Amino acid sequence: MNAEILCVGTEILLGDIVNTNAAYLSRELAQCGIGCYYQTVVGDNPERLKSALGLALSRADMVITTGGLGPTYDDLTKETVAAHFGRKMELHEASLAHMTEIFRQIGRPMTKNNEKQAMMPEGAHVFFNDRGTAPGLAMEDPEKNKIVIMMPGPPREMTAMFEAQVRPYLLSLSDTTLVSHSIHLFGIGESSVEDLLREQMESRRNPTIAPYAKEGEVMLRVTASAATREEADAMTRPVIEEIRGLLGEYIYGIDVGTLQNALVLALGEKRLHVATAESCTAGLISKRITEIAGASGVFSCGVCTYSNEMKTTLLGVPEATLAAHGAVSEQTALAMARGVRKLSGAEIGLSVTGIAGPDGGTKEKPVGLVYVGVSCDRLEKVAELRLSRSYGGEREFIRYAASSNALHLALQAAKLY
Amino acid sequence: MNAEILCVGTEILLGDIVNTNAAYLSRELAQCGIGCYYQTVVGDNPERLKSALGLALSRADMVITTGGLGPTYDDLTKETVAAHFGRKMELHEASLAHMTEIFRQIGRPMTKNNEKQAMMPEGAHVFFNDRGTAPGLAMEDPEKNKIVIMMPGPPREMTAMFEAQVRPYLLSLSDTTLVSHSIHLFGIGESSVEDLLREQMESRRNPTIAPYAKEGEVMLRVTASAATREEADAMTRPVIEEIRGLLGEYIYGIDVGTLQNALVLALGEKRLHVATAESCTAGLISKRITEIAGASGVFSCGVCTYSNEMKTTLLGVPEATLAAHGAVSEQTALAMARGVRKLSGAEIGLSVTGIAGPDGGTKEKPVGLVYVGVSCDRLEKVAELRLSRSYGGEREFIRYAASSNALHLALQAAKLY
Repeated sequence: MNAEILCVGTEILLGDIVNTNAAYLSRELAQCGIGCYYQTVVGDNPERLKSALGLALSRADMVITTGGLGPTYDDLTKETVAAHFGRKMELHEASLAHMTEIFRQIGRPMTKNNEKQAMMPEGAHVFFNDRGTAPGLAMEDPEKNKIVIMMPGPPREMTAMFEAQVRPYLLSLSDTTLVSHSIHLFGIGESSVEDLLREQMESRRNPTIAPYAKEGEVMLRVTASAATREEADAMTRPVIEEIRGLLGEYIYGIDVGTLQNALVLALGEKRLHVATAESCTAGLISKRITEIAGASGVFSCGVCTYSNEMKTTLLGVPEATLAAHGAVSEQTALAMARGVRKLSGAEIGLSVTGIAGPDGGTKEKPVGLVYVGVSCDRLEKVAELRLSRSYGGEREFIRYAASSNALHLALQAAKLY
Repeated sequence: MNAEILCVGTEILLGDIVNTNAAYLSRELAQCGIGCYYQTVVGDNPERLKSALGLALSRADMVITTGGLGPTYDDLTKETVAAHFGRKMELHEASLAHMTEIFRQIGRPMTKNNEKQAMMPEGAHVFFNDRGTAPGLAMEDPEKNKIVIMMPGPPREMTAMFEAQVRPYLLSLSDTTLVSHSIHLFGIGESSVEDLLREQMESRRNPTIAPYAKEGEVMLRVTASAATREEADAMTRPVIEEIRGLLGEYIYGIDVGTLQNALVLALGEKRLHVATAESCTAGLISKRITEIAGASGVFSCGVCTYSNEMKTTLLGVPEATLAAHGAVSEQTALAMARGVRKLSGAEIGLSVTGIAGPDGGTKEKPVGLVYVGVSCDRLEKVAELRLSRSYGGEREFIRYAASSNALHLALQAAKLY
């Protein structure tokens, strides 16, 4: 079974809002084993909505719409679908009662135009809205084997309705399940991954292997389809092992989400703590670590020192080290990692010092020269990175890549415990 | 002239990424005076891409695509458009040289498949990619009066290419010049701004006033169209003054980009320094300040302390204060701001302490309770914030909103000098 997502709303076409509904629904559909080949956005315009709906129904077994179910004259989704299916609109008493109750609870008068929301095509399967006034609905055409599911546009209403009512409805329709696993790689580019895996990616149909490059990392998604979750999951395993055989040295985790998530998980498992000393990234590493709920159990403290003076005062970097090698050096990176480890009492000290640009570079130490260091009782290591002019050489990229390398280094250290 | 947006990428259809490109492009097209009736997303599938392209070109004067320009076998956008226009692919030497240079600089081997990115349809207008390897391009069909503009999928590559090369290209298609100014507001919601300005926004045609709400801030863009830049610019001025009269207390800058940019500019002008002490935001504020090139001249240091012990050791927050009021309190926020100011010698100390969730909330101190504090010789102030968002991503939202409030508070302090 395949579905198409049709989001209705002029505000999306104007770019006033980002269409998070389409991403949410695509992900959820995949989890339900339903493929999706197109997402379309159309405005609150009767002709274009009608034509987009007709096209979607010609291409897909199921169309899922969001938006256009509200009380105003330009909310036309239900009416357009009903006309396409040749169904009459009729008052749905239970929806009217539900809506009346919601207005009573919020203490606002229910204006007459709201009643439009309780008008439903005959034979509709209604989904109540627990976070707003417009109900959702499904319409089935058993002859042509087509289904249209309509949900409200506001994400908080739509997602709650999907979770509680639409997902169970969808699962009741299908007899296969999809299972995906994500293999996370660091230190190798997308094109090199593809060079190594091209044959598998092109030839495999079930499970499939698909690469995603995102901000300097590569993620491979292995997806299998089978009658049961267990069966599908078992089918992914040999493929994951095969990839591990080819790319093992670059794999930092399976289904771990992000580098920072992998790090927080690893530290938590081993009851370790990390402390950060950042110069050119100035908070980006500690920010990324603490994005993860539960980071408070593994993150001791972070110190951002731009100036030499602060590196000495706060982190105890010897003045002699700074004088002999400079702030951007292997020696300073190591002293910073050691210093913040001592200051915080954390098992692992992590440091970054470098030149993010656009100014501050010299011939010997160009923009993009970065040292990331780690200090713990099982590893002391500094890696020199040359991120200079990479992908345009701009500041944001250098800082982000430096922070990713530091997180990866901390993860390597944590894995030694 | 009207355009259609066609985003190519299976990762969007799988819901792995939210399609921010479509929203960005819709907004930018509107600013260039180009309407948009449809946004479509299609996967990396040759047949469906071909059919989506044909449909889009049948409905619109211009099609703007993102994605599918990379080195891998499933990147097919250029080839599909070339086939539709009946153009041959040929090697574009300048693109190959640009790409070879990028690989040389990042010190990674350029695998053979990358060369595909330098193959261009004959007669293409090439846009260089300063943040990645895949160039963009425009193809014009003067007979049918159709244009297809193709850009890479990663937002940071696409937006940079649009800003520097595609927008000027689009503007060159028309004989008027657009000038925009951005009015940045903080501390007022989008709907309140709309309430106050609805009449102006709806009735004005030139200049136009358009509101953009983004991560807790509102930006009003005033755009005038005229034969010359000077003329258009002069037309915006009385409108900006009118808005200043209505909303002056919320305006933190005109054309200042972001809160952090406004802060770094203000500190630089007044030769002031800021130091940060962060608990729940843990580096997000220092990260945002140091995003700005030149921040090294105004940022003294940052300290991230989750634990009470670190708040006392590093920042000198009295144990008695923590015992009497807790870590999340007005008193602790003030002590942290004072502490980091003293530690660093900066004129302005800035602090945040709060509960970002999802755990750690209590009835008295719920998730979303945050204190932001500032200490300098002209202002000592702590603001209590109650931040919450009922649908997903609450932790991220609370941290970001807290950091924005802190940056705004520091800006208020800097303006007293």
